[in-house]
Amino acid sequence: METCRAGIVGAAGYTAGELLRILASHKTAEISYLASDSFSGTSVGTMHPQLKNLVDVEVKTYDCKEIAKNCDVVFLAKPHPSSFRYAKELLEEGLKVIDLSGVFRFRNVEVFEEWYGVKHEHPELISESVYGLPEFYHEEIRRARLIANPGCYPTGVILGLAPLMSEEIVEIEGIVINAASGFSGAGRSKKNDNNLAANVVGNISPYRVTDHPHTPEIEQELGKLGGGSMQEMKVTFVPHVAGFERGIFSTMYLRLRERGNSMDSRFRGNDKGDVDGRGSGNDKHGLINQTAAGSPANRATTDGLYKLYSEFYRGKPFVRICAGGRETQIKNVVYTNFCDIGVEVNERTGTVIVATALDNLIKGASGQAIQNMNIMMGYDEKEGL
Amino acid sequence: METCRAGIVGAAGYTAGELLRILASHKTAEISYLASDSFSGTSVGTMHPQLKNLVDVEVKTYDCKEIAKNCDVVFLAKPHPSSFRYAKELLEEGLKVIDLSGVFRFRNVEVFEEWYGVKHEHPELISESVYGLPEFYHEEIRRARLIANPGCYPTGVILGLAPLMSEEIVEIEGIVINAASGFSGAGRSKKNDNNLAANVVGNISPYRVTDHPHTPEIEQELGKLGGGSMQEMKVTFVPHVAGFERGIFSTMYLRLRERGNSMDSRFRGNDKGDVDGRGSGNDKHGLINQTAAGSPANRATTDGLYKLYSEFYRGKPFVRICAGGRETQIKNVVYTNFCDIGVEVNERTGTVIVATALDNLIKGASGQAIQNMNIMMGYDEKEGL
Amino acid sequence: METCRAGIVGAAGYTAGELLRILASHKTAEISYLASDSFSGTSVGTMHPQLKNLVDVEVKTYDCKEIAKNCDVVFLAKPHPSSFRYAKELLEEGLKVIDLSGVFRFRNVEVFEEWYGVKHEHPELISESVYGLPEFYHEEIRRARLIANPGCYPTGVILGLAPLMSEEIVEIEGIVINAASGFSGAGRSKKNDNNLAANVVGNISPYRVTDHPHTPEIEQELGKLGGGSMQEMKVTFVPHVAGFERGIFSTMYLRLRERGNSMDSRFRGNDKGDVDGRGSGNDKHGLINQTAAGSPANRATTDGLYKLYSEFYRGKPFVRICAGGRETQIKNVVYTNFCDIGVEVNERTGTVIVATALDNLIKGASGQAIQNMNIMMGYDEKEGL
Amino acid sequence: METCRAGIVGAAGYTAGELLRILASHKTAEISYLASDSFSGTSVGTMHPQLKNLVDVEVKTYDCKEIAKNCDVVFLAKPHPSSFRYAKELLEEGLKVIDLSGVFRFRNVEVFEEWYGVKHEHPELISESVYGLPEFYHEEIRRARLIANPGCYPTGVILGLAPLMSEEIVEIEGIVINAASGFSGAGRSKKNDNNLAANVVGNISPYRVTDHPHTPEIEQELGKLGGGSMQEMKVTFVPHVAGFERGIFSTMYLRLRERGNSMDSRFRGNDKGDVDGRGSGNDKHGLINQTAAGSPANRATTDGLYKLYSEFYRGKPFVRICAGGRETQIKNVVYTNFCDIGVEVNERTGTVIVATALDNLIKGASGQAIQNMNIMMGYDEKEGL
Repeated sequence: METCRAGIVGAAGYTAGELLRILASHKTAEISYLASDSFSGTSVGTMHPQLKNLVDVEVKTYDCKEIAKNCDVVFLAKPHPSSFRYAKELLEEGLKVIDLSGVFRFRNVEVFEEWYGVKHEHPELISESVYGLPEFYHEEIRRARLIANPGCYPTGVILGLAPLMSEEIVEIEGIVINAASGFSGAGRSKKNDNNLAANVVGNISPYRVTDHPHTPEIEQELGKLGGGSMQEMKVTFVPHVAGFERGIFSTMYLRLRERGNSMDSRFRGNDKGDVDGRGSGNDKHGLINQTAAGSPANRATTDGLYKLYSEFYRGKPFVRICAGGRETQIKNVVYTNFCDIGVEVNERTGTVIVATALDNLIKGASGQAIQNMNIMMGYDEKEGL
Repeated sequence: METCRAGIVGAAGYTAGELLRILASHKTAEISYLASDSFSGTSVGTMHPQLKNLVDVEVKTYDCKEIAKNCDVVFLAKPHPSSFRYAKELLEEGLKVIDLSGVFRFRNVEVFEEWYGVKHEHPELISESVYGLPEFYHEEIRRARLIANPGCYPTGVILGLAPLMSEEIVEIEGIVINAASGFSGAGRSKKNDNNLAANVVGNISPYRVTDHPHTPEIEQELGKLGGGSMQEMKVTFVPHVAGFERGIFSTMYLRLRERGNSMDSRFRGNDKGDVDGRGSGNDKHGLINQTAAGSPANRATTDGLYKLYSEFYRGKPFVRICAGGRETQIKNVVYTNFCDIGVEVNERTGTVIVATALDNLIKGASGQAIQNMNIMMGYDEKEGL
Repeated sequence: METCRAGIVGAAGYTAGELLRILASHKTAEISYLASDSFSGTSVGTMHPQLKNLVDVEVKTYDCKEIAKNCDVVFLAKPHPSSFRYAKELLEEGLKVIDLSGVFRFRNVEVFEEWYGVKHEHPELISESVYGLPEFYHEEIRRARLIANPGCYPTGVILGLAPLMSEEIVEIEGIVINAASGFSGAGRSKKNDNNLAANVVGNISPYRVTDHPHTPEIEQELGKLGGGSMQEMKVTFVPHVAGFERGIFSTMYLRLRERGNSMDSRFRGNDKGDVDGRGSGNDKHGLINQTAAGSPANRATTDGLYKLYSEFYRGKPFVRICAGGRETQIKNVVYTNFCDIGVEVNERTGTVIVATALDNLIKGASGQAIQNMNIMMGYDEKEGL
Repeated sequence: METCRAGIVGAAGYTAGELLRILASHKTAEISYLASDSFSGTSVGTMHPQLKNLVDVEVKTYDCKEIAKNCDVVFLAKPHPSSFRYAKELLEEGLKVIDLSGVFRFRNVEVFEEWYGVKHEHPELISESVYGLPEFYHEEIRRARLIANPGCYPTGVILGLAPLMSEEIVEIEGIVINAASGFSGAGRSKKNDNNLAANVVGNISPYRVTDHPHTPEIEQELGKLGGGSMQEMKVTFVPHVAGFERGIFSTMYLRLRERGNSMDSRFRGNDKGDVDGRGSGNDKHGLINQTAAGSPANRATTDGLYKLYSEFYRGKPFVRICAGGRETQIKNVVYTNFCDIGVEVNERTGTVIVATALDNLIKGASGQAIQNMNIMMGYDEKEGL
C-alpha cells in the first residue's frame, strides 16, 4: 500500500490536534505539512502539548506551492470563511482536499448563505464536493477530489435517523432533535462564553435554539435519504452545551405513522395475530407487535426497529446498535470513531425515541475526516481509527 | 409568629439533608425530631458530615407517639412504599404531614398502582391530600393536613408548561419532554448504577425511556390545569442522568396551534398588520408576530409568550422568566428554590421550546417541602429559602 | 439589634455575588449601595443571574459621598490596586471598611511591595488595619475600622497550622503546603487561562510554584502566632488549580520535633509507660503514644493532636476537627463558612499531615467578610452564615 | 517481526479494558485468550461496551492448559492475592507473564507481607521477577519471564525522583509526595466509596494517609536507584482521590543539599562567578545559579535541574520534561503512555518541587504492561502506544 502525504491547514485547533494524534499512528499516511498562522515557526508541542514527542513536524505558514510539493491530501481545519480560498487553490494544484468547515456541505448555495450569513465565494465547487458521511457515500467519496466533512451534530443525527427515513415509518413533520455537546465543540477561543469553566462545569444550557446552522445540513441530508416528499423536511433542532469535554448526545423524537400501503411491514406491528409474520405476506421477520391488547398493532415496535437498524448498518464498522436506555452513552464512544445508536418505541404516545452518541472531535470531525481519507486513498476504512 | 416544631422521618437521605440545612437557618421552625432506622443513636454529623455543628439533634428510631408529642409537622423523606403507614399514623395523631414520596400524588389509584407497581395501602387518604405545588395550589396547601410533595421532574415540567395549558396555544398531542437530571437524583444507594462515578462523570445517558413513573404525574397535573380535553393528555417523557451533581434541566417541545376562536390573541400573531395590536380588538398588548412575510401570523411568538409567562407567574416568588437560550441554565438555580423558565418559538417549524432549570434537591424536593410548610403554618412563603 | 446598611464596591465579581447572596437573608444587615463600573445602571440580575429576584438593588458607579450617606459598612471587592484609594476615602467619611484585596494584610510594606509588585499608596493605614481572621483576632476585629480580609489560601493554611505553631511540636523549617483550588478562585476574567474549561475540566496543574503572593501572608500570620523564632519562618507553598468550581483543599506536611523541655506533653508520646498520663506530671490527658514498641515515644501522636486541635478551636463555630483521611473533603464545606481540619501523624517518617478544606468563596472570602461584619457590628458571629 | 499471542486473565477490570483497547490496534500482537470468572461465556462488548466491534474474542474461564496452548504471553490483571497461583502455573507452562498486581514487586517478602497483609505464596518467584519500569530495567525486562508491572502511583513518583536520586542533590530524609488520582484508580467495585459519584465529583480528599501499600514500593525502587545510604529511605506519601476519571498528578518536595564533594556541579550553583561554568572545572554546562545575590549558590537551580532531567531521560520515548508550573498537567497525558515531569527550585526555602503527570490506566498500568511486552518480544518499545 502506497503511503500518502497529508497536510493540515489550520493546525492549531482541536480538530487539527485530533487529526495529528490519529495520523501519528496511521500505518500508511504521514504528516508532511502543517500550516498555522499563529503558531508558524513553533513546534507541534507548542500548539498541542499533549502531542509533544509524538508528532515532530515543523509548523509553517500556508504556502500553496509548498503544500502542493509535499502533500497528496490536505485537511482544511480552518473556521469556515477562509476555506473558500484554500480549497480552490489546493484543488487547482491537483491535491485532494478534505474540508472540515461547513462551506461545501450545501447543495443549495442560498441555504448556505442564509444560515451562515456569508457569501459563498466558490459556488462552482459545490457540484463536485461530496458530503463525507462514509456510511452513505462510500463510493462517491472514493472518487472525490473535495470532501465536505460533515458537522459534528449532523453526523450523529443523520446516522440516527437515516434508517427511519428510508421506510414509511414516521411522520416527516414535527421531528424533534435535542442534542447536548461537550464544550470542546466550541473550540479554543477564549471569546466564546461556552469555553469558560464557570459557564459549563456542572451546567447545561441550550444555545442558538432556533437558528443553529447545522439545522439545514441535517434537513438536506435527511431529505436526500428520504427522497420524495421528505426533501422539504424541516426539523426542530436544539443544541445544548454541557459540562463534559468530549461527546455529543442526541435524543430524537419522531411520531410513528400508521401503516401505509408501501411500507415494509417487517418493522412494525400488524393486526393479524400472525406470530411469525409469515402469514401477513410481508412481515417476513416477525418483528411486529402483537402482544399488547388494544395497542396500535400497525406501527413499528422497539424490537422491529432494533432489527431494522441492525440490518441497515450491517457492514458499517463505525456504527453500533445498542439495546436502548442507558446502553447508549457518551462514555462508550469518547476517543473512538464509533457512533452508537439506541432506538425505542413509546407505544403509549406513538413516538420513536432515537438516541445517538459520538465523540464530537472524532466521528464528529477528525476521525471521520481520516475515514474519508482512507477511502479516498484506497486504504482500509478503519486504518488508524 | 409562633414557632413550629418539625420532625423528619427518613433523616439519612439527600432530601432530608437539604431539609435539615434549610431548617437550620429558618426563623420560625425548629427541628424537633429526627428518625432514621439505619442511623438511630448517631448524630446528624454522622449521617450528613456537611451539617456537623450546624444541626445538633439526636437521631432516633421512628416512634409515632414520641413524634406526636414533639412535632407539629412531619416531613416523610422515605422511599415510597413506607410512606403509607407513616402518613396514616401521623395524621391520626393530629400532625400535619408533608410526604416527599409519590404515594399521595395521584387522584387515580389505578394509575399509581400501574406505574409504581405496588398496591396503594391507604387510598382513603388520597381525597384529602393536596398536590404541593404552591404556584397553583396555595390556598389548598394552606388548609391541608397532608401534602403530596411533587416529584423533581414534574415540578420543572409542570411549571414550564402550565402557562401554555391554560391557553389554546399548543397541540395537546405530541408533547415531548427531554430532561437531564444530576446524579443526586438517584439518591445515596450504591446499588444504583447511576451513582457510580465511572457511569456519570463526563457522561449523559437516558434511562427508563418509556416508563418513568413521573410521566403520569406530569400528565395528571397538566391535564388538570388545562381542563377539558387536556385531561386525557399523554406526554413523551425521556429522563437522562448527567454528570453534574445537582439540577434538572428540561427542554420541552410543543407544536403551535393555529388560532382558535376562544384563544386570547395577545400571545400570538395575527394577520391584520396591526402593529400595536389595538385594532384587532383582542390583541391588546401587540404581542403578535407581524414581521416575517409569509410566516404563520396566527400563532404565538417568542415575545408574546415571554409576556404570557411573565404575567402568568407575576407574584410567584420562585419562578423566574428568562430571555431564552443560554439564560436558562442549571448554574443559576443550584442551591436555590427558583425554577427558571425560558421560552422560544421556532417559527420555521411551528414549535414552542420551553426550557426549565431547578435544583432537584431544593425546588424539586426539600425547598418546595419547606415552602409548603411555610404556607401551611402561615409563615412568609419565602422564609428560609 | 440595630440594622446596619452595607455597601459593596466592585459588585460584579464572584466574591461580591457571594456577599449579596449571604446578605440577602441576613436578619440585621441590608444592602444599601452597589457600585460597579462595568455594570452601573443595570440590575443585580444582570451581573449575577442567579440572584435575580433575590436582591433588588440598583447598581451605581462609585460615589464616595453617596456611599457615606447610605452605608455604615462597605465591602471592597475590587482587584488589589484600586483598594488603596477607596479604603482611604471611605474611612475618611467615617465608614467601616472590609477590604477583600491583599493591600492591607501586610505589617511590612516592603514585603507587600515585593510580592505584589506595586507600590503601597497608603502605608499609614496599615497600622490600624486588622487581619480579619476571627478565630484569632475577634477582639481586634470588634474594634476595627479597617479589616484586611484574609486570602483564600491563607485562611485554610493558617487555621490548619495554628495549633501546631503555639506548641513546640514541629520543626519551623521545611513546612510544605500543597494546595488545590477550584477554578472560581481565578475570578471571572476570560483572560485568565485558569478559567478556560478545556484547561481545568478533568485536570489539575500547579501554578506560581515559587512566587504566589499568598506565601508571605501565610508566613507573617503563622510567625505571629508562633512568636519568637517562628517570626522568620519560610514555607514552601505550591498552589494548584483543579477541575472543581468551589473549594480549597490544603495538605500540609511538618516534621515532628523531639520533646523539648517547655512543651506540653499532653499532645505527644512519652517513655514512661504511664497509661493515663497522670504519673508523668504534665501528660494530664493521657494522649501520649505508648503502644508501638520502638516508636519515638517522645513525639506527638494522631490522637494527641486530635485533642489538641479540638481544644484549640473549642468555641470557634466555623472550625470543625475531623478524624482524618477521607473525612476532610471539599464536599462537606462547599456553600458553608466552615473550615474542616484533619490531622494525622505518620510515625514511620515523623511527619504531621494536616488537611484543611473550605469554600474559597465563603470562608475563603465573602463568608469570612460577613463574619467580620457581624463582629464589628456586635451581631451574632454566625448570623447569615 | 513474528506476531505474539497475548492472553488476559481478569479481563473485566479497567486495566484489562485498556489492554484490550491497545492490543486491538497493535501491529504484531493478537488477543488470543480472555479469561474472566464473572463474564465467562459473554462477549467483550458485555464487559467493556466501549470495545464492542473493536475486539471480538470469546470470554472464557481460566484454564491453564488452554492458555498455554493459545498464548505466548499472559497479562494477569487480577486483584493481588489470586496472582500467586496464576503466575506460578503459567510460568510452569513456559509462558511469559506480566503481572499487574503488587505481589511480585518486592525484593523483601516481609515488606510485602506487612503492607499487603497477606502471606506470600510463592516467594521463590521473587528472585526472577523483574520490576517492569522500562526506563530503568530495559535489559532485564528483555530477558525476563515474569514482570512485576509497577503500581500507578510509584510509576509517576519514581520517574519523577529518579534523576535526583542518582546525584547528591537532595536530602534523603523528609521527602514529601502529595499525589492525586482519578477515581478510575479505585476500580469498578461498587463497594468502594471512592467510586460513588457523590463522593468524588467536585471533590478531593486524602485516603490511607499513612499506610498506602505503594509507599514501600516507592521506597524500594528509589533506594535501589540511589544506592548506598538511600537504600533505607523513608518517604511520606499521601494519596488523594480527585474528581477526574483518569490520571495521577504527583507533587513532590525535597530539600536541596549543600554541595558535597562528589556531586556533579553542573546541576547546581557555585560561588565562582563563572558565568558559563567552564572555569569551575566541573560546571561544564553553566547551569549553576549565580544571579541572586545572597542565594545559596551551592545548590541546584531550576535551569540546572531541567538540563539534568532532560539528559537523564534522553532516548526514553515516554518521558517528557516540561518547563514547570502549569505545563505539567493531567490533560496532556490522558489516553497516552507519557509521563510528564516538571521540576522547579524554590530558592527561598531550598526546596525542589517535582511534579509528574501520567494516565493511571496507561503509563500507570496497561500501557506500561504493553511497553514491557514489546520489549520482551523484541518489538519497537512504542508499538501500539
